[in-house]
Amino acid sequence: MVFHYPNGKKFVASNKMSNTKNNKNVNVINYSNRGMTLEEALNDTNAYYLANNIAVIHKKPTPVQIVDVHYPKRSAAVIKEAYFKQASTTDYNGVYRGKYIDFEAKETKNTTSFPLQNFHAHQIQHMEQVLMQNGLAFVILSFSSNNEIFIMKAQQIITFWNRMLDGGRKSITKKEVELTSHKIPLGFQPRIDYLKIVDHWI
Amino acid sequence: MVFHYPNGKKFVASNKMSNTKNNKNVNVINYSNRGMTLEEALNDTNAYYLANNIAVIHKKPTPVQIVDVHYPKRSAAVIKEAYFKQASTTDYNGVYRGKYIDFEAKETKNTTSFPLQNFHAHQIQHMEQVLMQNGLAFVILSFSSNNEIFIMKAQQIITFWNRMLDGGRKSITKKEVELTSHKIPLGFQPRIDYLKIVDHWI
Repeated sequence: MVFHYPNGKKFVASNKMSNTKNNKNVNVINYSNRGMTLEEALNDTNAYYLANNIAVIHKKPTPVQIVDVHYPKRSAAVIKEAYFKQASTTDYNGVYRGKYIDFEAKETKNTTSFPLQNFHAHQIQHMEQVLMQNGLAFVILSFSSNNEIFIMKAQQIITFWNRMLDGGRKSITKKEVELTSHKIPLGFQPRIDYLKIVDHWI
Repeated sequence: MVFHYPNGKKFVASNKMSNTKNNKNVNVINYSNRGMTLEEALNDTNAYYLANNIAVIHKKPTPVQIVDVHYPKRSAAVIKEAYFKQASTTDYNGVYRGKYIDFEAKETKNTTSFPLQNFHAHQIQHMEQVLMQNGLAFVILSFSSNNEIFIMKAQQIITFWNRMLDGGRKSITKKEVELTSHKIPLGFQPRIDYLKIVDHWI
């Protein structure tokens, strides 16, 4: 079973209930030679960082508005009615070598550009707030069809975002991504070693 | 309506659906002269910090395991079956003046001691991991009956936790809290100005 947000985006359950392989809405990128989603590959990476005392970075839970809960006898409370809420921040944050780390990860099937509609205005605003507090914010952009993942500083995505607000293009061309970001080599352990790039920034 | 976790702890909905005033399970402390919960007062405080560019600190969403979602036509997706999950980290984190901030907030109705059962082993472990990455971790302890709130460094609560693991007492006496923590003065704006104490640590 595959869940979708009201906006049509896929909800990826953390326990992998869904068989994503045969679903058209799901981008399967070869993060791990076994059809991991970007979120799974990043969770794997963060688990590796944690287990090896490299960094403490977690994905935030999906925000849910709970309306009704039942309490069956002798078993766990069951949420019977709840709704997806818009997140007010990015999905991932934590600490690495004393630095506050904050990022959002998005993927596209496009091969020639990355649509900015993948981001929400409040996420961009959150990254601006983090930068003001001297935190380290960035985005991870996955071109799933090309099997390429890039890391782009928040300052840079904010520039592209503002260009759009000023009437410019609603996406970042692949060429622009290549010029303004670092490509993250895909590995086995960790899968997406983004901190190797972050090392150059701190 | 008041929700409870399987362990009997209250679930405090963020939109204040529940009228908590007349419920025995709820500690009503005078954080604001209008019966705010500790969580509400902290969310208020963090909103003040954010609005005034002082810090970017958010409470993480309650982790929920989603099992079944319905998609009614022309309305939002409804989660029809879900369960509360154990959080793997503390509830609050963010960035303040370049420093990674991480904390958990708990309250007790006791007047003479603070029970350590308010914390989970994985939360203590998470704070240890944060300290190893040179982040700033602490706990906010509220004695709701006395209307007193303290901030205690993670290093200190870990010491009390280990004393318990070594067969020592399962709580921290009020006297010990006073000796090892800072009392946070309650205010109007912000309600619980914990960063004023954190200032002395960074």
